[in-house]
Amino acid sequence: MTAFALDPTLHADTIEITTLPLCVARLMNDRRFPWVILVPSRPDVSEIIDLDTADRARLIEEVALVSTVMRELFRPTKLNVGALGNVVAQLHVHVIARFANDGAWPGPAWGTTPERYRHDEIDRTLAPLRGRLAGRA
Amino acid sequence: MTAFALDPTLHADTIEITTLPLCVARLMNDRRFPWVILVPSRPDVSEIIDLDTADRARLIEEVALVSTVMRELFRPTKLNVGALGNVVAQLHVHVIARFANDGAWPGPAWGTTPERYRHDEIDRTLAPLRGRLAGRA
Repeated sequence: MTAFALDPTLHADTIEITTLPLCVARLMNDRRFPWVILVPSRPDVSEIIDLDTADRARLIEEVALVSTVMRELFRPTKLNVGALGNVVAQLHVHVIARFANDGAWPGPAWGTTPERYRHDEIDRTLAPLRGRLAGRA
Repeated sequence: MTAFALDPTLHADTIEITTLPLCVARLMNDRRFPWVILVPSRPDVSEIIDLDTADRARLIEEVALVSTVMRELFRPTKLNVGALGNVVAQLHVHVIARFANDGAWPGPAWGTTPERYRHDEIDRTLAPLRGRLAGRA
């Protein structure tokens, strides 16, 4: 049994928000949409069914918490939730605030080219997420 | 309060597999990959957070059931799970068996062009799914 360690690609593409009971919550470095990933801090997990039933219940509730916070903060047209893992196998669940006027709408955000946040703007997205999520759950 | 009715576009694009305690399970009519959608049979639901906590726990367990069956039957490289709803707002969760040699790999299946099953081949995918899922849960 190995310890949990965040995949290096996920680490490089994201910024830490906070740690929830099951998952680490990180902001995708893509200024096109508010985009959070939840990574269950369990070793050797790539599919939802690699988690046990109790952790699956925790996962859906952490997805719900992040969804609620993102809906309140960003008022998106639609939330997109997904666990793909075709490129990075470590289980990570995306929660993305999508807008009818975003450049990828109505297609998926996955498989498109990210635009990095400018240094002076990331805190506008990161700080309210951290404020609402840190210490919750 | 309106009654649950399956969205007409979802109905047209899919074939019934079976009915689970929370969701109707339907096969996407796309021969490129085994692709199931789960539609919670609750009215007026477009986001996961429109379900209550008990239904969210049912949803993740039905996703897990379908995932387990699809992994057993099709031995995919990766399962892709997602709830988008940018085109059809009624909440529906995709569970897709993806393969490293499928035409969309490693990109998402969503936003690509489906290929309909030929009449004589659909039962090879549909029948084993129905056999494993009907009467489960």
